[in-house]
Amino acid sequence: MTFLQSLVCTACSAHHDPSKRQTVCTSCGKVLAATYDLETARRHLRRESFDTDRQGMMKYEPLLPILHRENLVSLGEQTTPLLRLDRLGEELGIENLWMKDEGQLPTGSFKSRGLAVAVSKAKELGVTSICIPSAGNAAGAAAAYAAKAGMECWIFIPEDTPAMNIKECAAYGAHIELVQGNISDAAKRMAELKTVHPDWFDVSTLKEPYRLEGKKTMGYELVEQFGWTLPDVILYPTGGGTGLIGMWKAFDEMEKLGWIGRNRPRMVSVQSDGCAPIVKAFETRARTSEFWNNAATCASGLRVPKPFADYLILDVLYKSAGLAVAVPDNRIQDAIKKVAQREGVLLCPEGATAILALEVLARDGTLKPKDRVVIFNTATGLKYPEVLP
Amino acid sequence: MTFLQSLVCTACSAHHDPSKRQTVCTSCGKVLAATYDLETARRHLRRESFDTDRQGMMKYEPLLPILHRENLVSLGEQTTPLLRLDRLGEELGIENLWMKDEGQLPTGSFKSRGLAVAVSKAKELGVTSICIPSAGNAAGAAAAYAAKAGMECWIFIPEDTPAMNIKECAAYGAHIELVQGNISDAAKRMAELKTVHPDWFDVSTLKEPYRLEGKKTMGYELVEQFGWTLPDVILYPTGGGTGLIGMWKAFDEMEKLGWIGRNRPRMVSVQSDGCAPIVKAFETRARTSEFWNNAATCASGLRVPKPFADYLILDVLYKSAGLAVAVPDNRIQDAIKKVAQREGVLLCPEGATAILALEVLARDGTLKPKDRVVIFNTATGLKYPEVLP
Repeated sequence: MTFLQSLVCTACSAHHDPSKRQTVCTSCGKVLAATYDLETARRHLRRESFDTDRQGMMKYEPLLPILHRENLVSLGEQTTPLLRLDRLGEELGIENLWMKDEGQLPTGSFKSRGLAVAVSKAKELGVTSICIPSAGNAAGAAAAYAAKAGMECWIFIPEDTPAMNIKECAAYGAHIELVQGNISDAAKRMAELKTVHPDWFDVSTLKEPYRLEGKKTMGYELVEQFGWTLPDVILYPTGGGTGLIGMWKAFDEMEKLGWIGRNRPRMVSVQSDGCAPIVKAFETRARTSEFWNNAATCASGLRVPKPFADYLILDVLYKSAGLAVAVPDNRIQDAIKKVAQREGVLLCPEGATAILALEVLARDGTLKPKDRVVIFNTATGLKYPEVLP
Repeated sequence: MTFLQSLVCTACSAHHDPSKRQTVCTSCGKVLAATYDLETARRHLRRESFDTDRQGMMKYEPLLPILHRENLVSLGEQTTPLLRLDRLGEELGIENLWMKDEGQLPTGSFKSRGLAVAVSKAKELGVTSICIPSAGNAAGAAAAYAAKAGMECWIFIPEDTPAMNIKECAAYGAHIELVQGNISDAAKRMAELKTVHPDWFDVSTLKEPYRLEGKKTMGYELVEQFGWTLPDVILYPTGGGTGLIGMWKAFDEMEKLGWIGRNRPRMVSVQSDGCAPIVKAFETRARTSEFWNNAATCASGLRVPKPFADYLILDVLYKSAGLAVAVPDNRIQDAIKKVAQREGVLLCPEGATAILALEVLARDGTLKPKDRVVIFNTATGLKYPEVLP
């Protein structure tokens, strides 16, 4: 059972019918977001019932877009752990430091959340082929969930993507085209081919509305794990930004459901100095980003030269009194090593950028010693042998 | 709170004091196992309370050996998913086919269960350095939990172990010695060095009693996930065999707790034809195994030429009216591909052997169409890029 109501454009507010396949807004081309009948939901749902329900993101199904449970495509997504980083926190003078470790999801990354919901909903709407350009982990997740759903999957991925991402897609039986350049070039190549493959359903980041719904479950889980309270600061490695936007959407929904109050965490976007379009835009308080030329970072998930939903990412940063921080790419390996040796967790390079940002913000006094701070590790380091120390 | 009572030798029944560090039986050199005051526990514990408790193996703490919760060393072990393999089951004519996917644990393998408990208990007993010979994943888990606990960790590992296992140990800051040969050779080298390092605490498979306690949680979880009922058949890739012995121990405990009846699943040990000492022993109904010369398999976790607890593994197989099956190493890659494409899960090569055994037993009629069958995937395929198709 779901309280899904409609699809609304995040830019022009035009409504779209969720009983049909939708991609972007048919009026203005911007991002569509699912809305729910939260007034009715408020009367029917008690947050406490989620505490003892089965674990994992799919327990939030009343607030997810799938109408019929038989369409759920799941690989066993469990609630990801919220780990207290005692030793690192002590070193940095942040005593209330936490990490949400998304590396323990199926396919080893947070991308499973978005693709689980997008593929489920696509199945519900009769899709039999999906296509996706990806910087890495989204491709792996798309290929895995498509395989489980019995769909064809067409992957467009930079040729210098970490080898494991390409290998996993191949194992799942996806069709793979390696593209010279970055995710933008991969998207261009896909667009060319799509003209002769009208049956392909595009599940690019925020170019269909339901990956966002999957990603928002990070927000629900986090708040539930903190006993229905919010942290003070969230540091989030930002490529396409779906998770950041999704968590904010979850907070909005939870407020309307009466589950949380009006206070919100400061949202911090972390990027690499090799590709920092959001940081650059944030510094001039711009509403959109500019294309980042010659993007290069070992944190492959952050190699997104111009996020499609840049206006939504920046909006969250401004609304939350947040920040955007670029960190040096050449220190990522050190951060991985530090966290592995102190906390026993093998970060992905994207997660390591959040650690580097944490160090900067702890040192310059932006983070207060009593702040409850959460960083996101978005994938397991096992997917990045090239980057490991 | 724990109902831990004593440590008892599995061979000669001699008792050992669990408030002191123990390794193997001081009388006969065989495996020690923890016992609990299950009569008292039966009056205090209700199985239903575990359904709605927090998730993950650590919720079974009354039946784990750690006295004080502050000694728990955890990396956020969640309940691993029990996935229904519909498409594969249909192909094989086994309609009730399930896989417990241990790849979604911290460090990406089931070894985290055993090492989480062993390292926690070692910490409780004042250990500051552990040492371990390993075929691969146990080393990674030992290194990670030791790092989290602030312990030194000494790893002895075959030089041809999958690269990722060596890399993860290095990242966690473990001391690594690469050894020519297999896990038996690594154990020999460690034994030499231990004579000059009396402070090292040996956490080799079943040479201390608590990894077994961690592994037994697979049995508790599985039965809980099936609504406190048992499957008919369990296929388990068997190297050192701790999980198989541990699950059986869990079933024994649950029976004494009144949580399950007397019926038990048939336990099937699966090995590679490149190293099948248990299969060879089983075929002659022997009580122990013989050293397997020139052991070679791409399923590195199965390269255990003579499991230390062979007598316990074989005992479980005989008691359960079980089986031992060797499968061709050269078909492992095909099995990985098949499951990836049909079920969206990237198996480790050890897990793939269980799929190959399943095919054999489905074909020859050992498995009945109505049997509820569970196979264990013991790690994520992400740790084995060399083996992926």
